Amino acid sequence: MWRVRQTVRATTVLEPVALSKQLQKPILIASETFQHTGSFKFRAAYCAALASKFDHLLTASSGNFGAALAYAASLLNKRCTVVMPHASSAVKIAAVKSFGAQVELVETNKISRAERVQQLANEFEDRIDVLSAYDHPMVIAGNSTLGEEIAALVPIGGGGLSAGIIMGLRAKGSKLEVWAAEPAMADDAWRSFAAGEIVSNSSEPGTIADGARTLSLGKLNFEILQKELSGVLVASEAEIEAAVRHLFSAQLKAEPTGALALACLIGARNGQLKGRRPLLIVSGGNVDPAVYGRIITAQD
Amino acid sequence: MWRVRQTVRATTVLEPVALSKQLQKPILIASETFQHTGSFKFRAAYCAALASKFDHLLTASSGNFGAALAYAASLLNKRCTVVMPHASSAVKIAAVKSFGAQVELVETNKISRAERVQQLANEFEDRIDVLSAYDHPMVIAGNSTLGEEIAALVPIGGGGLSAGIIMGLRAKGSKLEVWAAEPAMADDAWRSFAAGEIVSNSSEPGTIADGARTLSLGKLNFEILQKELSGVLVASEAEIEAAVRHLFSAQLKAEPTGALALACLIGARNGQLKGRRPLLIVSGGNVDPAVYGRIITAQD
Repeated sequence: MWRVRQTVRATTVLEPVALSKQLQKPILIASETFQHTGSFKFRAAYCAALASKFDHLLTASSGNFGAALAYAASLLNKRCTVVMPHASSAVKIAAVKSFGAQVELVETNKISRAERVQQLANEFEDRIDVLSAYDHPMVIAGNSTLGEEIAALVPIGGGGLSAGIIMGLRAKGSKLEVWAAEPAMADDAWRSFAAGEIVSNSSEPGTIADGARTLSLGKLNFEILQKELSGVLVASEAEIEAAVRHLFSAQLKAEPTGALALACLIGARNGQLKGRRPLLIVSGGNVDPAVYGRIITAQD
Repeated sequence: MWRVRQTVRATTVLEPVALSKQLQKPILIASETFQHTGSFKFRAAYCAALASKFDHLLTASSGNFGAALAYAASLLNKRCTVVMPHASSAVKIAAVKSFGAQVELVETNKISRAERVQQLANEFEDRIDVLSAYDHPMVIAGNSTLGEEIAALVPIGGGGLSAGIIMGLRAKGSKLEVWAAEPAMADDAWRSFAAGEIVSNSSEPGTIADGARTLSLGKLNFEILQKELSGVLVASEAEIEAAVRHLFSAQLKAEPTGALALACLIGARNGQLKGRRPLLIVSGGNVDPAVYGRIITAQD
């Protein structure tokens, strides 16, 4: 883990005075938008790529893990192939390509990402390592480097970041509460947490938070989350977009998935966080200019 | 200065790998977008407000110094009035008001900011301190706290930031070169530097970089710049907008004035910086959503 810690950028902690005043809630932000490749995913990707014994890495990703793995592979002189949904954000596809990786677009209503990954794994002739963007011990280990630095309200898709942060905190003896922030349109984590077992979405949810368009939590992650996660908060699509605008005003360019924690704080239906000073994890900043332009010029 | 250093936020240094690769120029960015009130101006404003013996502070500003002084005044329980051009950015006017300051809008084609400031200074009955946004010893002293941290290619309007950075560097014995970055549409610093004396713009230039819409360099600043500045680079309006887009891709929300250094690096007509690794100062992030949305969705 030493080499991972040396290579990742420390998170950027911000104390947005005007935003705290406006929302009448004292908040702290931990931004991973300045992490290599613009999201926290580089922590996991570099850790996993470094640990892999193979020279060709294959993954499925809506974009951020793909770009992170592509960059990590380029640093380590490995080959990289990324299966991405056809509807992926253009900047995310471009980012993966810019680091020299091969992009395989799939129409997810015809074939799932996982199936296409399996097809490719069979087709490729070199020795290949199939890496999950969120459900892999090295992914959790990589993400735990963020938990070592700080903690609290965390965007959730497959659960790799929240599980990683929990592991990082617990390894340091911290009992700090970790809450997950999820789009209401893709609330499988909330339902899984309530049911006590992994519940899947029937198809990839169409939420604007593309990092949370996963079908379900990872198994490894769910084991950790079931024991240690304090709860799951959900946010509507309108709240997610409002959160992007608030972060814009606070100078932070965040992608919709990155704004999930603030979105859930705005909603805060359940009041679970009441009285606490939440540390919001802003997990990434990669977003198409057209999408971002539309969101920031829209009205609340 | 101890209390100023305690209160300002340290600058955020970023090393944008993808951007360096794309521009084929190795760059470093020092971002002041996360400074209190979203720009470097807080350094100067807090220093000047702290040093002032008066309880009412009056200034003219296109916005960032106004917001910074308003916030500084609120921290120090002082009254604050800000004269702003009628065409000021809406978010900048709102920011000044949000910190409890009084805004006086002027139509700069009818009466100059300086004249209106003088009128108000005569009208107000309490003891008042008229502070220049860029030409004041305490403004330079405040800005020098940034020079102590880092150095290099700096946006220039009235010259308060570049002079301050130079003072900060020289005070620490650093001979690091400092270059100024200016809109071609408002190139009075370039002309002043060439002429060896202060040359003014005939009216406030209409550049999109509203922080550089000053009529001329400050006298105090020019004395310092004439001796110590390595040169002035200029950028077209198109280059400034392209720089905003590049910084957007590098996750940094910068206002047009904040993107000046990168804009001049993109142009780099003169080649003066060739072979050096420029540290670009991104001075602020305050920009209207509509203006920002238009810039980032436009094509190069």
